[in-house]
Amino acid sequence: MAGRKVLIVYAHQEPKSLNGSLKRIAVEELSEQGCSVTVSDLYAMQFEPRATRNDIVGCLHNSEEFNYGVEAWEAYKRGGLSNDVIEEQKKVQEADLLIFQFPLYWFSMPAIMKGWMDRVLVQGFAHDFPRCYDSGLLKNKLALFSFTTGGSEEMYAKGSISGDIRYLLWPMQHGIMHFCGVKVLAPHICFAPEYVSEERRKEMLIAWAQRLKTLWKEEPINCSPEWYFNYRPRTASTSLNTVLGSNCI
Amino acid sequence: MAGRKVLIVYAHQEPKSLNGSLKRIAVEELSEQGCSVTVSDLYAMQFEPRATRNDIVGCLHNSEEFNYGVEAWEAYKRGGLSNDVIEEQKKVQEADLLIFQFPLYWFSMPAIMKGWMDRVLVQGFAHDFPRCYDSGLLKNKLALFSFTTGGSEEMYAKGSISGDIRYLLWPMQHGIMHFCGVKVLAPHICFAPEYVSEERRKEMLIAWAQRLKTLWKEEPINCSPEWYFNYRPRTASTSLNTVLGSNCI
Repeated sequence: MAGRKVLIVYAHQEPKSLNGSLKRIAVEELSEQGCSVTVSDLYAMQFEPRATRNDIVGCLHNSEEFNYGVEAWEAYKRGGLSNDVIEEQKKVQEADLLIFQFPLYWFSMPAIMKGWMDRVLVQGFAHDFPRCYDSGLLKNKLALFSFTTGGSEEMYAKGSISGDIRYLLWPMQHGIMHFCGVKVLAPHICFAPEYVSEERRKEMLIAWAQRLKTLWKEEPINCSPEWYFNYRPRTASTSLNTVLGSNCI
Repeated sequence: MAGRKVLIVYAHQEPKSLNGSLKRIAVEELSEQGCSVTVSDLYAMQFEPRATRNDIVGCLHNSEEFNYGVEAWEAYKRGGLSNDVIEEQKKVQEADLLIFQFPLYWFSMPAIMKGWMDRVLVQGFAHDFPRCYDSGLLKNKLALFSFTTGGSEEMYAKGSISGDIRYLLWPMQHGIMHFCGVKVLAPHICFAPEYVSEERRKEMLIAWAQRLKTLWKEEPINCSPEWYFNYRPRTASTSLNTVLGSNCI
């Protein structure tokens, strides 16, 4: 797998956090494999999450009524997006694999990472209707959502109060990545690291390193409603490991 | 309904947009009813979406390893959150109804609004395990998600490529609002306003004004997995109007 390019989009404020360790392990393991790894450390970069007029350099396409989607699309075509967005687009363009590493905030990614999606994946670059979903402009790339949760695995089981963890993956994996044509690998989820032992946290890191060793052999999930909502029911006592993929913790 | 308090959290860059008009209509109609209406115009406020150390005034609870959730919780208890967060919490505390008005970005809310959720709804203020879901700290309040989409109603029908629109409501309505104890009214969705006639857009505004006239008589939805994933299947040709509530466009 030498020569493959990986972009890790990372959103945690604290390098000593489990997210920080998971990111570091990915850099080390993938580099060891000969991959070229780039990290966008969003908090360290003070990445701007707000989609505003500032993203458009020069004159607007329609200065009477500001439409962000249209303006970003037009600016992309003439090379007039702000530099920070262009930099991220270059990284995405070069990458074979995108890894998103973050703590789950409110059943989703932190705002700073959502802003990365909002501002970087503009029309013309990542999609251009009808070039979306399997025809999306970022096809031939892979994505993997790797995140930690506050709630336990039991809270995110089907029939539990927070619902199956797969429900909340739909907007991120299907609505964003699949929409852009990116194929999605099984998510990597560390449940409630704040409430487990130091030993268990170490096991979580080891499991991630182990998974990365054979990551390039994995098949993408079938990113359709069935995967998210219609697979066989299970109870809180059934381990997610068997459901989210054998390498998944 | 005179005397009721409403907070509109609004995220659009352009006052002349349909979102801007929907917000204005809500202010006018609810004010006419005698409600007290407050608007948090996030872009105009340049609201900060990033959850960082800057949100904590003074010393950290644990300066060795920054944990945003813990620090925000501790800061809340001692009145040490940053002023912009405290201001928003006051507005939420006083409100009987929260209306979120935004354009759908990537199957979710824009990052600037996600940041409002991330930073304002901190532990101790909005939830405090096990005080969550029906026991959440914001119970006795109502919320309503009012948004515009890029895709058409047909694209968001069950069985269509983008999946049922209800799928993407799960993280926002259940994962955020219900988690905090807030009861959720049926969403108000304007599909693809950019691709319909000026007349149809006017009808959308009229429908919203009409719905607002009887809003206080509405019953909240049953915010459980059944509402989102298990209700009767329908095809793209079935109107969403009948499914999302008779007042919903």
